[in-house]
Amino acid sequence: MPTTALTRSGSRAADQLRPIRITRHYTMHAEGAVLIEFGNTRVLCTASVEEKVPPHKRGSGEGWVTAEYGMLPRATHTRSDREAARGKQSGRTQEIQRLIGRSLRAVFDLKLLGERTIQIDCDVIQADGGTRTAAITGAWVAAQDAIATLLAAGKIAASPITGAVAAVSVGIVRGTPLLDLEYVEDVACDTDMNVVMTGAGHYVEVQGTAEGAAFSRSEMDQLLSLAEKGIAELVLLQQESLRN
Amino acid sequence: MPTTALTRSGSRAADQLRPIRITRHYTMHAEGAVLIEFGNTRVLCTASVEEKVPPHKRGSGEGWVTAEYGMLPRATHTRSDREAARGKQSGRTQEIQRLIGRSLRAVFDLKLLGERTIQIDCDVIQADGGTRTAAITGAWVAAQDAIATLLAAGKIAASPITGAVAAVSVGIVRGTPLLDLEYVEDVACDTDMNVVMTGAGHYVEVQGTAEGAAFSRSEMDQLLSLAEKGIAELVLLQQESLRN
Amino acid sequence: MPTTALTRSGSRAADQLRPIRITRHYTMHAEGAVLIEFGNTRVLCTASVEEKVPPHKRGSGEGWVTAEYGMLPRATHTRSDREAARGKQSGRTQEIQRLIGRSLRAVFDLKLLGERTIQIDCDVIQADGGTRTAAITGAWVAAQDAIATLLAAGKIAASPITGAVAAVSVGIVRGTPLLDLEYVEDVACDTDMNVVMTGAGHYVEVQGTAEGAAFSRSEMDQLLSLAEKGIAELVLLQQESLRN
Amino acid sequence: MPTTALTRSGSRAADQLRPIRITRHYTMHAEGAVLIEFGNTRVLCTASVEEKVPPHKRGSGEGWVTAEYGMLPRATHTRSDREAARGKQSGRTQEIQRLIGRSLRAVFDLKLLGERTIQIDCDVIQADGGTRTAAITGAWVAAQDAIATLLAAGKIAASPITGAVAAVSVGIVRGTPLLDLEYVEDVACDTDMNVVMTGAGHYVEVQGTAEGAAFSRSEMDQLLSLAEKGIAELVLLQQESLRN
Amino acid sequence: MPTTALTRSGSRAADQLRPIRITRHYTMHAEGAVLIEFGNTRVLCTASVEEKVPPHKRGSGEGWVTAEYGMLPRATHTRSDREAARGKQSGRTQEIQRLIGRSLRAVFDLKLLGERTIQIDCDVIQADGGTRTAAITGAWVAAQDAIATLLAAGKIAASPITGAVAAVSVGIVRGTPLLDLEYVEDVACDTDMNVVMTGAGHYVEVQGTAEGAAFSRSEMDQLLSLAEKGIAELVLLQQESLRN
Amino acid sequence: MPTTALTRSGSRAADQLRPIRITRHYTMHAEGAVLIEFGNTRVLCTASVEEKVPPHKRGSGEGWVTAEYGMLPRATHTRSDREAARGKQSGRTQEIQRLIGRSLRAVFDLKLLGERTIQIDCDVIQADGGTRTAAITGAWVAAQDAIATLLAAGKIAASPITGAVAAVSVGIVRGTPLLDLEYVEDVACDTDMNVVMTGAGHYVEVQGTAEGAAFSRSEMDQLLSLAEKGIAELVLLQQESLRN
Repeated sequence: MPTTALTRSGSRAADQLRPIRITRHYTMHAEGAVLIEFGNTRVLCTASVEEKVPPHKRGSGEGWVTAEYGMLPRATHTRSDREAARGKQSGRTQEIQRLIGRSLRAVFDLKLLGERTIQIDCDVIQADGGTRTAAITGAWVAAQDAIATLLAAGKIAASPITGAVAAVSVGIVRGTPLLDLEYVEDVACDTDMNVVMTGAGHYVEVQGTAEGAAFSRSEMDQLLSLAEKGIAELVLLQQESLRN
Repeated sequence: MPTTALTRSGSRAADQLRPIRITRHYTMHAEGAVLIEFGNTRVLCTASVEEKVPPHKRGSGEGWVTAEYGMLPRATHTRSDREAARGKQSGRTQEIQRLIGRSLRAVFDLKLLGERTIQIDCDVIQADGGTRTAAITGAWVAAQDAIATLLAAGKIAASPITGAVAAVSVGIVRGTPLLDLEYVEDVACDTDMNVVMTGAGHYVEVQGTAEGAAFSRSEMDQLLSLAEKGIAELVLLQQESLRN
Repeated sequence: MPTTALTRSGSRAADQLRPIRITRHYTMHAEGAVLIEFGNTRVLCTASVEEKVPPHKRGSGEGWVTAEYGMLPRATHTRSDREAARGKQSGRTQEIQRLIGRSLRAVFDLKLLGERTIQIDCDVIQADGGTRTAAITGAWVAAQDAIATLLAAGKIAASPITGAVAAVSVGIVRGTPLLDLEYVEDVACDTDMNVVMTGAGHYVEVQGTAEGAAFSRSEMDQLLSLAEKGIAELVLLQQESLRN
Repeated sequence: MPTTALTRSGSRAADQLRPIRITRHYTMHAEGAVLIEFGNTRVLCTASVEEKVPPHKRGSGEGWVTAEYGMLPRATHTRSDREAARGKQSGRTQEIQRLIGRSLRAVFDLKLLGERTIQIDCDVIQADGGTRTAAITGAWVAAQDAIATLLAAGKIAASPITGAVAAVSVGIVRGTPLLDLEYVEDVACDTDMNVVMTGAGHYVEVQGTAEGAAFSRSEMDQLLSLAEKGIAELVLLQQESLRN
Repeated sequence: MPTTALTRSGSRAADQLRPIRITRHYTMHAEGAVLIEFGNTRVLCTASVEEKVPPHKRGSGEGWVTAEYGMLPRATHTRSDREAARGKQSGRTQEIQRLIGRSLRAVFDLKLLGERTIQIDCDVIQADGGTRTAAITGAWVAAQDAIATLLAAGKIAASPITGAVAAVSVGIVRGTPLLDLEYVEDVACDTDMNVVMTGAGHYVEVQGTAEGAAFSRSEMDQLLSLAEKGIAELVLLQQESLRN
Repeated sequence: MPTTALTRSGSRAADQLRPIRITRHYTMHAEGAVLIEFGNTRVLCTASVEEKVPPHKRGSGEGWVTAEYGMLPRATHTRSDREAARGKQSGRTQEIQRLIGRSLRAVFDLKLLGERTIQIDCDVIQADGGTRTAAITGAWVAAQDAIATLLAAGKIAASPITGAVAAVSVGIVRGTPLLDLEYVEDVACDTDMNVVMTGAGHYVEVQGTAEGAAFSRSEMDQLLSLAEKGIAELVLLQQESLRN
């Protein structure tokens, strides 16, 4: 591994998150509407309550939580095609929205939700790496606000949310394990891992990919530890934002 | 016509615009990136420079200006389907993006632009009526910023923008002609007209639709005068925002 | 403005319609089936009665009127792609069919129609400018015939059609306001306006577009007057065709 | 087989074609534009010359002949969905347009055509059985007219059309073999066969389908003889129409 | 006709089928699952029982039999695009699956089947000519197995299958009529005919196409006789496979 | 954790792979064509050499390796829709084919491959859990065969394959970590992980998902060890199959 120190933007330490900002009630129509910022990455996460469920849940007494993900065409450095104009969502988009949906469902008791759907929409306003992890982290806060409206309206008696969930990316750049990669680091990294964990410190999803060289078990262990640290901090920030 | 006074939100006068806010450089990647607010309506307008033109302009020495329009699923009171997920843009979306494109081209000298494209993207973050008129008004400011980068880079010698363009909606609600309709007014109105004008006070587009009863020539005249007043104010606000 | 007189085909005056021909019962299956000709522009307009309504009208006791528009691939000078083969309707097609639908609904009392749909189909057999205005004008006659079958069958007691509707294009070509543009005039014009009016002389739709230079209020006034004259004549021709 | 005589509309004999009408130059833009009528079935067949070939013929020195087929929504008794609106052509449509294309190519010397395409469009204005056979028969006349324009313009020295091609349907209805089925006969028939033959009396396509009971070799023989008779008559009518 | 003998692979006679192999229970989930081989052509035919019918049969008391056809991308000499990735089935695919469905329905009493669907899937694992005829021949065996499961489960009292159905291709290659064309023969042939017949020797479908020169009545007669011979042999092989 | 022993089919031990069978040259057209079986899961993996590259590699001197994945409709217990008929690939399909492509590219030197593409197609003939891991493991063998044809033809001088890659699933079922889950185990498991490793024992992809309860770091460690054992065995089986 190289000995030259790697300099991160804003003189961030290797195990340090970017400045995180969580703005609730960012828009006025959705039951939950959160703008989450991981540094320059900005994702608008809305949670909508719909009093119906998809076919596979009809009559089950259970609800559903699902997510869609999109990127504004000029959220990125060079403009990307508008998926609505192209007429289909890319494989990457589908992968991400499936991940967000599974992550949220991991902390939902669908029985307690009743036959309704929490529809999460995560739209990237500005991208600088880590859009999917910001989306999961922000979506959970938006979901909390949406559930609060249901509790306030007396539609459910107890919250179906069983705990927190948050996500962060980790990766190895020129031999150094880094927490919360921004775009230039993401492009340069050999290994890229997205980790989703509960507030209780258990894994919901681990998705590691060797972009360059394959990675060893010990590298994997370092990355998992970094992610654990980052997610613990994110969960505190989520809680704090809900207290305001 | 009814004599009972119609009360508008924020005690607006019938011929008064909503509070308008134009925020330039709202995102960091696009050459022009403007958040425009007409009251609660918020539209992000980006202008991207692409060094290529569509087939019908190749080899012509002329450039092109085109626009796409989208609405975040929860920009509206009840969630609307994500067009990317549905696999096609609605007729309404296509109508609006064609209108934005034509409006901007009306004040562009495509010869001076050279063989490149200004790609406008208007994405509605929050909708409360008038999204297409806000989009046109904001897109023009974004286009100015994009052209400024081309001028600064020495890629073009003179601005291809021949003047300002802005747009506003007008309508007749319970007999009263109103300027700049917000959503509840739009729903209630008998006649709805979108007017696009240049800074010089000429018409680029006039689209009037009788939602309820057909309208008379004299009603039309009143609406055109209201729109003229509103657009003159919008053009001043555009200029002011460019001075900052 | 130029002083050289502009010569129109067939020595038409500037404020003169092309020869208009309305042929009812042009095909045998549809409840209403009208071939309308504005000079060389020929549009087949059928009106079909369907004993069902779209979801947003179910259970409302009201009916619906909607329209689709198409152009045969070789209706135009150079062949255009078949939309069915391409797999989607163009933005232009959608814009036009939405316009036809709104125009017809403006003279329908949907309550009196009952829970059924009048489905209008306007298919351009030959195009020479003004296809959308011919389509609206012919569709209204086809709708009358379709309603007559419902009245004859005793399915409705009174006609839901509250009045006539017709449409014409107007434009400014080399400084001269012209009524009912044919293709070569449409291509040459600076300003193009489609006007839809009721038999009572009120506006249903006004769609004006500056193709070249933006237009002034006084030009607009001239165009509106021209359109008013043309539509009054079209309404007479509609009435006459229904008497035969 | 039943002994009760089967009565056809217009007191047609079992081996008699419906009244056939071929109208050339039906529309003004296409190089060939033929309205063909087999009784109440009316198909507009246009042949367009395009100075390009599909990828598999590029650089081959050979041309191509291809066809598209469509049915106006209300060409039929009950309205059928518009394929452009549905976003795809049905299997039936594709089957028919492939058949028309193969049939025409059977009498084209693609070498003599040179690297250009004859694009056939067959659009059914009114359907009463036999639309595909009318389409093939009319398309051949339209193709002749299109080739004539190429010859007249000196673009080709000799006609690439090597002979006539025409088509007719035959079927067995309640035990009786019938020529040129109209809709009510088509619905009632046990066996339905579409036959395409050259002017020289050879087969280009034979497509027989048992709609009800499977058919015997002797029934097949009767049907083939009937078709042969009908096609010989159609070829004479094609020739006659070209002389006018 | 040429006098030089035509040599077929494996020293097949002109009127000889390729080696036919029918393997039942080829996969474990489907009610019927047959791998059929016509020489090197290998098609997996599954028959699935679904306890529902398409809309046009609902409430009719009758069932339905339908088919889908696919080709693995590398079943052919050069890879063909995956239809699922391209987003639509080709015209050829639709033509074939419609043919398979009609052929099977010809030997089904839909009343006896009851309101359920036999869904046939024919997937080509390896192609060497005659995939559609192998598919029909194998699908019938798979359908028998599927019906056997319904009989065994007591869901139906009597088999709705009224007889056998099988298919073979025939063609004229350099003047010689050949039975059961393999790929190189198919490419070389002037006339190509697919024949579907019942076990009782009646025609269900006859689809003959002149690929090169049009064919005469006497050639057609020879081809039909060849097909009859081949199908009689295929029906015996079907019966034999069901006895094992 | 429960103390009752969990019984696997075929009395498999918790850390034992299902019987693995690798059949090369399963079909005749593809450069590499491998049927791989993990117990009852059967996937046909073909590798096709195409002498072209996608746009992003043109002119780079480098090749590309990509994959598509499909499931025959009745590969599963209940029939799933045919993606080609539905007109799009599911999110799951896209996720899997992206994973296969990345996994193969991890062991390819694209420079040595030259400007050509290795197109992998993985089609599931029969599914019983672990289709994506079988696909990766089989695709690598097929890729070896395809590369061998390039070496034999002298098109490349050295193999671009830098090492082996194989994949296996692991999961925790009722508290017991299991290797190589079959379908019933997959359905029952709380945690499901797919691991892709090189022959040298490094990670290429790790994708773990908590289907039920979130999982702990120690559970994750056990799963990774199990996977490492299984992949080492798979790599030996791959090598062995290549020696035959």
